[in-house]
Amino acid sequence: MKTQDELKKIAGYKAAELVEDGMTVGLGTGSTVRYLLDALGERIKKDGVHFTGVPTSNRTAEYGRKLGMEIKSLDDVDTIDITIDGADEVDPQINGIKGGGGAQTWEKLVATNSKECAWIVDESKVVDQLGKFPLPVEVLAYGHHQLVKRLADLGYKPEVRQKDGKLFRTDEGNIIVDLHLDKIAAPYDLADELSNMTGVVEHGLFLDMTKTVVIGTQDGAVVKTK
Amino acid sequence: MKTQDELKKIAGYKAAELVEDGMTVGLGTGSTVRYLLDALGERIKKDGVHFTGVPTSNRTAEYGRKLGMEIKSLDDVDTIDITIDGADEVDPQINGIKGGGGAQTWEKLVATNSKECAWIVDESKVVDQLGKFPLPVEVLAYGHHQLVKRLADLGYKPEVRQKDGKLFRTDEGNIIVDLHLDKIAAPYDLADELSNMTGVVEHGLFLDMTKTVVIGTQDGAVVKTK
Repeated sequence: MKTQDELKKIAGYKAAELVEDGMTVGLGTGSTVRYLLDALGERIKKDGVHFTGVPTSNRTAEYGRKLGMEIKSLDDVDTIDITIDGADEVDPQINGIKGGGGAQTWEKLVATNSKECAWIVDESKVVDQLGKFPLPVEVLAYGHHQLVKRLADLGYKPEVRQKDGKLFRTDEGNIIVDLHLDKIAAPYDLADELSNMTGVVEHGLFLDMTKTVVIGTQDGAVVKTK
Repeated sequence: MKTQDELKKIAGYKAAELVEDGMTVGLGTGSTVRYLLDALGERIKKDGVHFTGVPTSNRTAEYGRKLGMEIKSLDDVDTIDITIDGADEVDPQINGIKGGGGAQTWEKLVATNSKECAWIVDESKVVDQLGKFPLPVEVLAYGHHQLVKRLADLGYKPEVRQKDGKLFRTDEGNIIVDLHLDKIAAPYDLADELSNMTGVVEHGLFLDMTKTVVIGTQDGAVVKTK
């Protein structure tokens, strides 16, 4: 029986094969992406593969540089060939929830500007319906008490994310509100509602953004495509 | 013939009458609001009126405090009785464009949490159709080149706002892209489109948020209500 970490590694290493010499590659954030970065670092060393990485967080930028990758900001590239990123939940339509690590805004920015996207997950992330994983929403700090009250009134069970006893802050200096929805029956309506709320910077629903998911399972890597 | 500044003053002083003792008052930002604050400062001194001001910018907070106002953050009040703010354009439905001063996000946050809103403008701001004034959109700095390209492809003539030869920064540390649209035929559709774009924090279209506009005209203050 493989551990969850081993399943993440299987997915990360399999997805590293999607990167070809000369590509510009969006690099996600999180524990599964760590394995992807390790695998890509090995390909740089062993095979002499060269690619440009566009990071979705300061963490990923640092780790990628350490492994010998050329890292460029989203603003310094014309186009991204493929973005590979983790996900906290993936449903059968390859829609997902992201943002457990608090980086969903940059992740969505990079994904939006990519020709193609792939997610890498261990099999525990594959669900029939989104919502068990609390939906992360990045919001401006100013006025967030009012916004949280509104979200509570809507029945969305908001919880302001803390870290080490303090407010969690994103790379943009904003905060994260996690919505404990349990089941998201109408993801497109919810995405629209959240996007239109003043104070919301970005939410963690990623709809119709990804066509490929690489799943680490007990039987090895499984690639699903839409 | 009164100057534009005199017309702003007429509007600001007239609107100061809307504030009653004990109220919590959202305070806008800009040159017309300056006159409102002056008038409110006088009412504090002369009439002993007491109210709590909720500012929409650091500038307004500082100026209000100097005039003897009690200033509280949006997060520290339960509810706002009325918000009084300027506008860059107002149409016959009392929809408007705001953000010439770059404070539209906090302005919209405060307005959203107010029971009532009033705008104060000189008569040059009253238009038949919105859009002559470039529409300010607050966007995240990361990836903004890509977003600007997308806005240009849509024909929205985006221009990244500069100040003193550098990127203009909002109180939130973001940047402003001004859209030179000339005419906004479908403001609700545009608002929805912009809100749903990744990287957009908030746009300057204020639709159905205000019922009262106080206009400084050559014949004195005119109050219009929807």
